[in-house]
Amino acid sequence: MSDEVRGAIEQFWETMGTNDFKAVGDLFHDDFVLEWPQTDERIRGRDNFAAVNTNYPAAGRWRFTINRLVADEDSGVSDVTVTDGVRVDRAISFFQLHDGKIWRVTEYWPENDVAPEWRSQWVERGGNPSQ
Amino acid sequence: MSDEVRGAIEQFWETMGTNDFKAVGDLFHDDFVLEWPQTDERIRGRDNFAAVNTNYPAAGRWRFTINRLVADEDSGVSDVTVTDGVRVDRAISFFQLHDGKIWRVTEYWPENDVAPEWRSQWVERGGNPSQ
Repeated sequence: MSDEVRGAIEQFWETMGTNDFKAVGDLFHDDFVLEWPQTDERIRGRDNFAAVNTNYPAAGRWRFTINRLVADEDSGVSDVTVTDGVRVDRAISFFQLHDGKIWRVTEYWPENDVAPEWRSQWVERGGNPSQ
Repeated sequence: MSDEVRGAIEQFWETMGTNDFKAVGDLFHDDFVLEWPQTDERIRGRDNFAAVNTNYPAAGRWRFTINRLVADEDSGVSDVTVTDGVRVDRAISFFQLHDGKIWRVTEYWPENDVAPEWRSQWVERGGNPSQ
């Protein structure tokens, strides 16, 4: 079953890469919900998902690179680099499947920050290899 | 094997909850490395891990609540709420095991932000249930 979840997540990001956000909706359960906890936002259903992605301010075509993917029986997590050719972001997405379809996604967008000085004596630089 | 990974991650957070950061090191592989990509930091080995956590500015005892946990054969991801009684943070941690020990952790700390106005017509409020 974890191969099914893994495959569904890979297909999700591959289809996202076409930038055809209506086609991405074909992978969704009818009760699809995407949550962005950081901004307290919930996007319900295929049409809203396509509208947000289509209207997202972009310098160019969106490209997605999977850095890591972990999957168990009915859920999985991806760590993905997202770029429009100008900005580069990282999305950590928790997927839940239902009836073989993508049903719930909870997504985090961690942003880069400055390392605090107080801990520098115990820390090396270089923890950001893939972004 | 995924139960072994799941158990190791649960034990990690349970031991973190004792705030005995030397004891946490007993769960680590000798080549343990923790990476914080957002600040480009790498913490190598048990002693540095214990030093950073012991010296982390805190209002009180650290408590950790696992919100989600996904594990496959040799890796896993947790979504954890971290609080010292005053501040509340969220850690998304990718674990890799080696010889049954925690070997590599890559950790993200997504912060709350304001929802942009442009997408409000397609979005509901309420995507932040557990923080």
